[in-house]
Amino acid sequence: MPMINVQMFEGRTIEQRRALAKELTEGTCRALGCTPDAVQIVLTDIKKENWAEAGKLFSDT
Amino acid sequence: MPMINVQMFEGRTIEQRRALAKELTEGTCRALGCTPDAVQIVLTDIKKENWAEAGKLFSDT
Amino acid sequence: MPMINVQMFEGRTIEQRRALAKELTEGTCRALGCTPDAVQIVLTDIKKENWAEAGKLFSDT
Amino acid sequence: MPMINVQMFEGRTIEQRRALAKELTEGTCRALGCTPDAVQIVLTDIKKENWAEAGKLFSDT
Amino acid sequence: MPMINVQMFEGRTIEQRRALAKELTEGTCRALGCTPDAVQIVLTDIKKENWAEAGKLFSDT
Amino acid sequence: MPMINVQMFEGRTIEQRRALAKELTEGTCRALGCTPDAVQIVLTDIKKENWAEAGKLFSDT
Repeated sequence: MPMINVQMFEGRTIEQRRALAKELTEGTCRALGCTPDAVQIVLTDIKKENWAEAGKLFSDT
Repeated sequence: MPMINVQMFEGRTIEQRRALAKELTEGTCRALGCTPDAVQIVLTDIKKENWAEAGKLFSDT
Repeated sequence: MPMINVQMFEGRTIEQRRALAKELTEGTCRALGCTPDAVQIVLTDIKKENWAEAGKLFSDT
Repeated sequence: MPMINVQMFEGRTIEQRRALAKELTEGTCRALGCTPDAVQIVLTDIKKENWAEAGKLFSDT
Repeated sequence: MPMINVQMFEGRTIEQRRALAKELTEGTCRALGCTPDAVQIVLTDIKKENWAEAGKLFSDT
Repeated sequence: MPMINVQMFEGRTIEQRRALAKELTEGTCRALGCTPDAVQIVLTDIKKENWAEAGKLFSDT
């Protein structure tokens, strides 16, 4: 606890995933005063054809 | 804001995704009075073996 | 099946919720060719202090 | 109407998915007194590089 | 890991919540072969005016 | 476009929410190279009676 779910465009590298996990965990601990082992993070890769804004798919913009 | 997450069976065409994004955005704006650019939609394709109802996987029914 | 989760700012009226449920269901059926009874929708009311963009809470903007 | 979303490491067999759907549905009915047809379950397979705890990706631990 | 999110109608007793946590954890361990301490469950109470099926709010049916 | 959902125990102060929004946004931008305005964050407060680990509600541990 806390549990963090991140939806982001697919295509990120393993290094970016590592960096994101580290940054979000450390930032959460600084903000909430929890310990790193309490923080779980799940990353979900979303295709641009599966994400829309203002009625349009990002694969079409 | 609003953020809409749709879980649906995999296999929809790109045209269906476009239509769904357009319909959900326009419908949301009509109902809530928000503007299209405020509406974000994420579509998640679910395999039938990953969706169950009444204790049974849809891939088995 | 589809399952639709909507996160939106708190404060919407019951009429807006009715309209949103109707619009999203009908729009989904038009786009995907499914029947209304297959569509489930959950609305989640979010306080402005619990939604942030560009690093700022909406309650502060 | 309970809707259950399960995030789990990828790689489970179809038999494990069947067993999980059955167990979660029956357990929910016993605990809440609902009927099986009211229970929907979606399983999401997560790669170890997309799940982190204590700031580290499970693919790195 | 696994992480289980349950959306259910509001109004369940603390005993039902205890029973549900126990049932879902034990059932998951039987089905997937994981240990209880690996299983996290979050319960979300949904008002009937915030859940719709076939275009209608459950508070109206 | 990263969309971040955080589930955390209820009871955090407004200052903690501000700090968390700032930290997660800045950390995401450093890790993924996106801009702050692309990052949306929703915080969800969970009662201890609605979060379980190892089959037990946190309100009981």
